[in-house]
Amino acid sequence: MEATYRALCAHGYANLTMQGIADEFEKSKSLIHYHYDTKEELFVAFLEYLLDRYTEGVEVSETDDPLDRLEEFLDVFVVAPDDEDAASLVVDVVEFRSQAAHNEAYREQLASNYEAILDVFAGIIEDGIKAGVFREVDPRRTAELLFAALDGARNRQVTLDAPEATTTMRETLMEQVVEPLLLEEGR
Amino acid sequence: MEATYRALCAHGYANLTMQGIADEFEKSKSLIHYHYDTKEELFVAFLEYLLDRYTEGVEVSETDDPLDRLEEFLDVFVVAPDDEDAASLVVDVVEFRSQAAHNEAYREQLASNYEAILDVFAGIIEDGIKAGVFREVDPRRTAELLFAALDGARNRQVTLDAPEATTTMRETLMEQVVEPLLLEEGR
Repeated sequence: MEATYRALCAHGYANLTMQGIADEFEKSKSLIHYHYDTKEELFVAFLEYLLDRYTEGVEVSETDDPLDRLEEFLDVFVVAPDDEDAASLVVDVVEFRSQAAHNEAYREQLASNYEAILDVFAGIIEDGIKAGVFREVDPRRTAELLFAALDGARNRQVTLDAPEATTTMRETLMEQVVEPLLLEEGR
Repeated sequence: MEATYRALCAHGYANLTMQGIADEFEKSKSLIHYHYDTKEELFVAFLEYLLDRYTEGVEVSETDDPLDRLEEFLDVFVVAPDDEDAASLVVDVVEFRSQAAHNEAYREQLASNYEAILDVFAGIIEDGIKAGVFREVDPRRTAELLFAALDGARNRQVTLDAPEATTTMRETLMEQVVEPLLLEEGR
């Protein structure tokens, strides 16, 4: 998966071959073929791996504070203006999403990633409501708003040359969506 | 442009040829070539035409009320769950956006469309602030939040088989972003 990641950064989705991935892989091309029959199967596994990268921080977080956890998870989807590797990976995600309209294997995996990300956001919001930190909102809908806005902003950032888009969106989401959730008495 | 629109709905971006567009066009293929040297030029013109379709409602709107105008413009980006033609057009827009990462002509036109849409949202919010209907927010950032969330939701709707995504997002945006803008004394 690390080799696929490096190969995607180096070649981009459209130009990537199994050989390009094998070139990044210390072991052999036959080993890749042993595990994955097609490029599509390998990419589905890669999308699953990407989800783990997105969500791993949540499990090792050192804080229980719902507001801090929410901020940490928003950060996962912010692409710094000068982080070209991260931007290049998002270009690939945008390309996978575009393919997903016609490719069932990508669609299923990406839809399952999307749900898993919403579950993390909604879980944090739900915990915050139970802890008396957030006011009573619909956790699922708030999660959809946060992630759709970040997802839209990062798509814009990498496809329309707007290097600050996710950084600005994170600030706007804090000001206009997250801070209004806070109950004074919980702080 | 209407012929291009019909041809895109029928064939999709990836499979579309100049002949496919000419087949939808009462006049001749040579007339298309007279105006557009390449498929790329034709598509840039089509993206400009799409922007006009998005924004034309703003100019003919029968209301001056900032809240009503904001709701009308949010509606432009909602794709009804059963509107297959609209969904198919959004698939093409997603594909153009994905291409824009590598294609300067698409990137310039789509970035200019994005800015124009933000200008409409920001203009309505600014008018609302001046009229004492909305509280003092940053019109540009609020515009970015509204459009990124809708854009993210419509991308999800068509690529990840989530037919209600934009309908739900419009409701969530009203509840969590637009209604909190309202100053009681302005109503």
